[in-house]
Amino acid sequence: MPEIYVHAVEGRTLDQKRALVRDITAAVVKNFNVGAESVMVQIVESPKENKAKGGVLFSDRPASGV
Amino acid sequence: MPEIYVHAVEGRTLDQKRALVRDITAAVVKNFNVGAESVMVQIVESPKENKAKGGVLFSDRPASGV
Amino acid sequence: MPEIYVHAVEGRTLDQKRALVRDITAAVVKNFNVGAESVMVQIVESPKENKAKGGVLFSDRPASGV
Amino acid sequence: MPEIYVHAVEGRTLDQKRALVRDITAAVVKNFNVGAESVMVQIVESPKENKAKGGVLFSDRPASGV
Amino acid sequence: MPEIYVHAVEGRTLDQKRALVRDITAAVVKNFNVGAESVMVQIVESPKENKAKGGVLFSDRPASGV
Amino acid sequence: MPEIYVHAVEGRTLDQKRALVRDITAAVVKNFNVGAESVMVQIVESPKENKAKGGVLFSDRPASGV
Repeated sequence: MPEIYVHAVEGRTLDQKRALVRDITAAVVKNFNVGAESVMVQIVESPKENKAKGGVLFSDRPASGV
Repeated sequence: MPEIYVHAVEGRTLDQKRALVRDITAAVVKNFNVGAESVMVQIVESPKENKAKGGVLFSDRPASGV
Repeated sequence: MPEIYVHAVEGRTLDQKRALVRDITAAVVKNFNVGAESVMVQIVESPKENKAKGGVLFSDRPASGV
Repeated sequence: MPEIYVHAVEGRTLDQKRALVRDITAAVVKNFNVGAESVMVQIVESPKENKAKGGVLFSDRPASGV
Repeated sequence: MPEIYVHAVEGRTLDQKRALVRDITAAVVKNFNVGAESVMVQIVESPKENKAKGGVLFSDRPASGV
Repeated sequence: MPEIYVHAVEGRTLDQKRALVRDITAAVVKNFNVGAESVMVQIVESPKENKAKGGVLFSDRPASGV
């Protein structure tokens, strides 16, 4: 506690994930006054064919910030 | 924003997903007064062995609306 | 099943919510081949001070599609 | 309704999942006064490289309760 | 970890919530081989006007298992 | 997109929330290569009587990192 869920389209590298959970955890520890060991971060990846913006699946869109 | 998450057992086709996100986005635009580009829809699929109704996994149940 | 969660900033009227859940349910029934009674829709409202875009809380932003 | 989501690192057996959804459903029926058929349980599994505690991915940690 | 989210219409007593989180935690400890202190349970309550079944808000339906 | 949900017990100040969403957004922009305007952060607050650790509600526990 707290628990943080990051929803993103799949495709990030292990290094990107490693750095993201480290930096998000630091942001929570700094601002919400909790110990790092109490912070859980989960990255919920989605295939491009399961996520849409503007009513159009990412698998049908040109590349953009996802 | 808004963000819509659809939890369903896996197995729909790409065409079904494409039509669903289009229609849900239209419903949000019509009723919540937002532009289509601000609407995010994510389909969260689950294997049948990870989802249950009545305490019984869908992989152990006869077929039904999932 | 399926279950649909709509995350939005608070402030919609009861009539807007009533129409939205009706239209989203119809979209799921039509495209995912399930009976209406198996469809659950939940609207998860957030205060403007609990939601951000671009790193800025909606309570600190000028009005925009939320 | 109610809907229960269990977030865990992947790796449990089918028997473990089968027993978990049975016992959680029984707990909800007993305490929240609903029929078993109205209870939905979904297990959301995460790869170890997508979940972190203390800012460190489970794929980078020694084994612990996940 | 694991984290469990229970989505329900509001209206349960403190005693009902207290018993539910105790029993769900016991079910997770027993079946998923984790220590009790690693289990988080959160009850996410929804007003009846924010949740629907069959396309109809619970605030517009006769009472039923929610 | 991405969308980030932070689940925490209620009680943080507006300044704490403002700083948290700023810092989390910066972490996502830096590590996942997206523009800040595509990042959504929502803080999902829970009353202490709706959240438990070790099978005990936070309203029944002595204060700890929540």
